[in-house]
Amino acid sequence: MYRIGLDIGGTGIQMGIVDEKGHILEKNDIPTNTALPFSEQIHAMADGVKIMLERSGYSLLDIASIGAGVPGVADPRTGEVIFCTNLSWHHMPFREEFRKYYDKPIFVDNDATVAGLAESVAGVSAGSSSSVFITIGTGIGSGIIINGRVWSGAHGVGSELGHSILELDGEPCTCGNRGCVERYCSATAIIRMAREQLARHPESSMMDSCEGDLKKLNARMVLDAAKEGDSTAVKVFRRFIRALSMTVANVVNILDPEMIVLGGGVAKAGTFLLDAVRADVPNYVLYKDLPFGRIELARLGSDAGIIGAAMLS
Amino acid sequence: MYRIGLDIGGTGIQMGIVDEKGHILEKNDIPTNTALPFSEQIHAMADGVKIMLERSGYSLLDIASIGAGVPGVADPRTGEVIFCTNLSWHHMPFREEFRKYYDKPIFVDNDATVAGLAESVAGVSAGSSSSVFITIGTGIGSGIIINGRVWSGAHGVGSELGHSILELDGEPCTCGNRGCVERYCSATAIIRMAREQLARHPESSMMDSCEGDLKKLNARMVLDAAKEGDSTAVKVFRRFIRALSMTVANVVNILDPEMIVLGGGVAKAGTFLLDAVRADVPNYVLYKDLPFGRIELARLGSDAGIIGAAMLS
Repeated sequence: MYRIGLDIGGTGIQMGIVDEKGHILEKNDIPTNTALPFSEQIHAMADGVKIMLERSGYSLLDIASIGAGVPGVADPRTGEVIFCTNLSWHHMPFREEFRKYYDKPIFVDNDATVAGLAESVAGVSAGSSSSVFITIGTGIGSGIIINGRVWSGAHGVGSELGHSILELDGEPCTCGNRGCVERYCSATAIIRMAREQLARHPESSMMDSCEGDLKKLNARMVLDAAKEGDSTAVKVFRRFIRALSMTVANVVNILDPEMIVLGGGVAKAGTFLLDAVRADVPNYVLYKDLPFGRIELARLGSDAGIIGAAMLS
Repeated sequence: MYRIGLDIGGTGIQMGIVDEKGHILEKNDIPTNTALPFSEQIHAMADGVKIMLERSGYSLLDIASIGAGVPGVADPRTGEVIFCTNLSWHHMPFREEFRKYYDKPIFVDNDATVAGLAESVAGVSAGSSSSVFITIGTGIGSGIIINGRVWSGAHGVGSELGHSILELDGEPCTCGNRGCVERYCSATAIIRMAREQLARHPESSMMDSCEGDLKKLNARMVLDAAKEGDSTAVKVFRRFIRALSMTVANVVNILDPEMIVLGGGVAKAGTFLLDAVRADVPNYVLYKDLPFGRIELARLGSDAGIIGAAMLS
C-alpha cells in the first residue's frame, strides 16, 4: 500500500504518492489560491490528487491514506485546521471536506511537525525513537517526535519552539510577544542583525552582495560572507549561532531527544552551520559531562513536507 | 499487589508502601548519611524497607516493585544514578545494589519527575494523559508525563526546565550558565529580588518580618507581605509571577500538555499564586484564542515523592 501526502503552502501545494519507506513515486503540484472559498480550494487539491493518480498508473485501491501538512495549527484528532494565517483558514473542517472526494483516512498536522516526522521515518533521524526537528527559515518551526510518534500537544498548539521566550523583554515579535526564539535565530533575525552591523561597517562585503541596497540583503548573503571571513558577517553569524545553540540546549535540557535535526532554508549553509552549533551547544546544556542528543542536518529537503504528510497516522 | 516508594533527599529518606490508587499504607523514614559509602547507604535503606514491611504486616510477596526518586539525574533504563550532587553520587548502580536485598523490579528516576508522576496518577492531574509538573523551591524542578508515561529524555538529562534559558546573558546561575529560568522564578529568585528592593525601600513590612536582617529573609515572608499589599513585596511578586508565567507559557508553546501543575514550597502560597499565574500566562502563549492546558496546584504535598517513586515502572 502507498500513501498520499500534500504539502500545503501559502503559494503552492506539492503532493506525492509515497511508499512505506518514504520514497516518492509520483508528484504533482498546483498553485494555492487563497481567493477561493475553502471548499473550492479542497476541490482543487482533490483534482490534483486525481490527476496524479491517473498519471502514476496506481488506483485508489493502492492508497491507504491521505495526509496534509499546513503552515498553521491543526487538531490531528478532529482533522480540523484551527488556524492558518497564510491561507486565511480559521476552524476549517479539512478532513470532512476532503472525505467528500476520497473515502480514505484523512490526516492533517502542522508543516514543521510533518517535516520532522518525515526525517524520523525516511531521513536523517530514521530509526531514532525521539527527535526534535527545527526548521530555520523566515521564522522558526519545530516538530517533536516522542516514542516514534508525532507529539503536537494535547490541544494542537504545542511544538512552537520559535515562539518560546529566549529573552525577557527582548525584541518585539510579529506574534505580539517579546523575546521569542525566532527573533534571534531565523533568517529574519540574521538580516536584522546584519543591517544593524552594516550601518556601522559599510565596508563589509555584504554591502556589495546587496548592491548597496539593504532591502535586497538576504540571509544567504550574510552566511556566504561569513564563510568567506568577512568580519562584520562573522560577528552576525556568531550571534545567530549563539542564540540557535541556546535554543538547541533548551531542547536538550527540557526534552532530551535522541536527535535534534536542523532544517529549513538557513540550514542549507550546511556543515558551516552544523559545526558551529555542535561546538557551541555544550556551553549551554546543564549536564556538561553527560551525553545528549546528536545534532544533524535534515536530509530530505523540500520533499520532507510530502513524505511526512503521507506518513501521518 | 502493593509497591514501595523511596523519596531520597539530602537530609532524609522517606519511604512508604503504596496501593494501586496511590494511597500510602505504611511509612518509614531514615536520615541520609552521605558520609557512608554508597553500598552502606543502600544497606540502610534496605533495612528501613524491611522494618517498614514488618511493621505493616505485609510480606514481600505483596510487593510488586520498589522505586526511588533522587535529587539528580538517573538513567531509568539501567537503574544507574548518574549524578546526584546532594548525595555525592556519581555513576552509582542503584538498581544493582538494591537487588542484593530485594529480588524485585527496582526503578529510579529524578525526584521532580517522580512527583509529577504521582500527581498524574493519584493527584490533581490524575486522568490526564499529558502533564508537566513544575516544582518551585530553592530551584526549579520539573517532571514531564506524555501519553501517561514519564518522559525523562533519551539520555535521562531532560526535564530540567529550571535550567532552560529565559534571558540571553541574564543572571549568573549556579550551574555555570546565565539567564536560567530558576534565576527568575524560584524561592532564591524571590529572595534576591526582595533584597534588591529592600535596599531602596527599607520601610517595607518585609524588613520587620526578617527583623532587619536580610540574611533571615525568606520567600514566605515576601509572599506574605505581598498578600497583605506591601507595595515593595507586590513589586517583587509581580516580577516573579511574570517570569513564572513566561515559563509556563514556554511549556504550553513547546509541549502543550493537558495540564500544568505547580508544586514545591513556593506553591504553598496557594490560590494567591495560582490566580496570578492563570491571569498572566495568556499574555505569553502564542495562540491567544485557542485553548491550552489547565494550570493547577499540586495536591499531594510532600507525599508525592513516595507515591510517585512507587508508581515508577
